[in-house]
Amino acid sequence: MVRTASTDAGVTGGPTLAVVAREAGVSVPTASKVVNGREDVAPETRRRVTEALDRLGYVRRPRFDASRPPRLIDLVVHSLDSSWSGAVLHGVEEAAHDAGLDVVVSAALSRSRVDRPQRGWLDRLTARGSSGVLFNLAELTGSQYAWLEQQRTPFVMIDPVVEPPPGVVSVGAANWQGGVTATEHLLALGHERIAVIAGPRRRMCSGARVAGYRSALASAGLAPRPEYLRDGGFDESVAHRRTHELLDLPEPPTAVFVCSDRMALGVCLALAERGLEVPRDISVVGFDDLPEARWTTPALTTVRQPLAEMAATGLRLLLRMMDGEHPEGTRTELSTRLVERASTAPPRRPPGT
Amino acid sequence: MVRTASTDAGVTGGPTLAVVAREAGVSVPTASKVVNGREDVAPETRRRVTEALDRLGYVRRPRFDASRPPRLIDLVVHSLDSSWSGAVLHGVEEAAHDAGLDVVVSAALSRSRVDRPQRGWLDRLTARGSSGVLFNLAELTGSQYAWLEQQRTPFVMIDPVVEPPPGVVSVGAANWQGGVTATEHLLALGHERIAVIAGPRRRMCSGARVAGYRSALASAGLAPRPEYLRDGGFDESVAHRRTHELLDLPEPPTAVFVCSDRMALGVCLALAERGLEVPRDISVVGFDDLPEARWTTPALTTVRQPLAEMAATGLRLLLRMMDGEHPEGTRTELSTRLVERASTAPPRRPPGT
Repeated sequence: MVRTASTDAGVTGGPTLAVVAREAGVSVPTASKVVNGREDVAPETRRRVTEALDRLGYVRRPRFDASRPPRLIDLVVHSLDSSWSGAVLHGVEEAAHDAGLDVVVSAALSRSRVDRPQRGWLDRLTARGSSGVLFNLAELTGSQYAWLEQQRTPFVMIDPVVEPPPGVVSVGAANWQGGVTATEHLLALGHERIAVIAGPRRRMCSGARVAGYRSALASAGLAPRPEYLRDGGFDESVAHRRTHELLDLPEPPTAVFVCSDRMALGVCLALAERGLEVPRDISVVGFDDLPEARWTTPALTTVRQPLAEMAATGLRLLLRMMDGEHPEGTRTELSTRLVERASTAPPRRPPGT
Repeated sequence: MVRTASTDAGVTGGPTLAVVAREAGVSVPTASKVVNGREDVAPETRRRVTEALDRLGYVRRPRFDASRPPRLIDLVVHSLDSSWSGAVLHGVEEAAHDAGLDVVVSAALSRSRVDRPQRGWLDRLTARGSSGVLFNLAELTGSQYAWLEQQRTPFVMIDPVVEPPPGVVSVGAANWQGGVTATEHLLALGHERIAVIAGPRRRMCSGARVAGYRSALASAGLAPRPEYLRDGGFDESVAHRRTHELLDLPEPPTAVFVCSDRMALGVCLALAERGLEVPRDISVVGFDDLPEARWTTPALTTVRQPLAEMAATGLRLLLRMMDGEHPEGTRTELSTRLVERASTAPPRRPPGT
C-alpha cells in the first residue's frame, strides 16, 4: 500500500507559527513568509526558520478541504507520445489554468480496444468526483454514453472518431473545407492528375477531407478517378505502400493530397525510393501541420488544423456545461488553412503533352 | 462560478435501484448492469432502464469518499507542446496507471520566468492534497525546495536543469556517456575535425555531453580545438547561426556533434543553404532521438535518451517515497545509446590530405 504524504501532513495541533518564530529569533510575518514559500527572505533567515520548523515539528495546516471535492477535470486521450496529443494537451491545460481548474490526464483509450476507455477508468473518474471530461479522438460505446449521462458528468468530444449521438457536444476542424483548400491549391498550380491518400473510411474527419477533395475537383470540372483514391488508414507504412501502387499506375498522379502529415512522411519515403524529387517530379500536400511537417526535406506544405485552439474551445464548452448550460449547436468547427512550404510546385509537364 | 457535477450527483436518498428495476420491468441485476455501464445488456433493455432512471430521478451514489483525499500525483512540465514532454508524460502516465494513481499535468514552468513554477501552482497543489510531484526539466528556487520539504510532499526531479541540492532525488540520462558514444562514432568513421554545438553552459545535461565529447577526443589523442566548440543554447536558430560560423572557419569541421535533435534541424538547414550534402560533405550526430529525428532527410543519426523510461523510473522512485522510504543514491542515470541512421559517413577526404 502507498501512503499519501497528505495523510502525514494532515495532523493538526503541534507548535504554532509564533513559537517557531521565537525559536528562530525572527518575526511571525518572516516565519510565515518562509512557510509560504515567498522569495523575499534572506537565505540565512530562511535556514534558521527552516531548522526551527524541523526541530519543533511544525506542520503547516493543509489547505485541502475534504468537504469539497477538488476542482478537477479529466482529459482522456488516445496516446500521449504523439505531437498531436501534445498540442491538444497544451490547449486544454492553458485554458483550464485560466479557469482555475486542474487537469487529470489519462491515456485510457490506448489501453483499450479501438479507442474505447476501459471500465476501470470510468470507475476512477467517478470515485474522484471529476467535474467534467474531455475526450480526444475517442469513440464511446452506447453504454459508456449512458453511464456518463447517468453520472451527470458533463463531457465534450474533441475530434470524435465517428459522429457522436445527437446532443453530444463536440469540437472539430473544418475538415471538408481543408480538403477543398488542399485540392484547390494543387489545381491552381496546374495539376489535374491529383491522387488522395485517405484515412480509414469510417473516420469522420477523413471522410470529410476526401469529400472536400471531390468537391474541389467537381468545381474544376474534373471527374475523380477511382484509381487515384487510396485508403492509407492514417498509417505511415500503409501510405508508403499506396504510393508505390499509385506510381505503378499506367498514368501516375502528378500530385498527392495526403490526409495526414504522418502518412505524408511515408509517401515522401516511397517517392525517394523511386528516385522522384519533391516537388519537381511530384507535389505532396499533407494535413494537420504537426511540428514534424517542418522537418521533412523539402518542408511539407500542409493543411493546418488548429489543435490547441480546438482543445481550448472544448474546455470552454465544458466549463459552460459544468455551469449548467447546454451549449447550442452540438458541433463546433474551427477553420483550417493552407500552410505553404516547399513540397508543391506546378506539374513537370503540362498534362496531356 | 462553476458548479461541479459531483455536487449535483452527491444527493443521497431518492429511489432505490429496486424501484428503478420494477419501473423498467427488469431484474435488479440488469438495472445494476446499466447503471454500472456494463456492455452485456440488450440495447432495448438499456433504453428502458435509462428512461426509468431518468423518470425517477435515480442518482447513483458517487464512490468518491470525501474523507479520503484522492490518489493524485502531479507532473509539472516546462511546456506541453513538444514531443519531449509527450514522451515523459507517456512514461509517467503508464507507470502511474499501473500503480492505480491519476496524474494531474500542469505546464506551470512555461508560465513562469526561467523554469520556476509559480506560487499559485504550489498553493493549488497543497489545496488538492497531492500525494507527490514529478518535476520535468525544472529548476526550483531555494524557497520552493523549502516549501516542498515543509509540506512533506515527496518529489522527484526528472532531468533537472541544474544540479539539485543534496538529498533531492533525481533521474536523468547518462549524458556524459552519450557524448562519448557520439564522438567515438565519428572518430571510428575517420573524422578528426569534429565540432560540437552545445546547449547552455549552465545546463547540467549539456555540460556532461560536452565533457563526454572532450573525453573521447582525449582518448583518441586529439586536443579539442576551442573554435570547434559553440554554444547553441538548445535553440534551433542559434544552432543554425553557429553552423554558418563553423563553415566560415579556415579549416571547417568534417563532422558536428549537436547536443539536441532540435538544434540538429537548424544545423541541417544551414548545411543545405551552403549546398552541402549530409553525410557526403559533412556528418551530423544529434542527441535525444525525438520522433522528429526520423523525419529529416537523411534521417538523423542520434544518441537516444530513454525519456519514457526515465519518467517511469521517476514515478517508481516517487511511489517509494510516498511509502515513506527515501531511495538510496540521489541521482539515477539511465543509459543512452547511439541510433545509427543516415546522417553520418566517413569524411570526404582523409584528414591531412
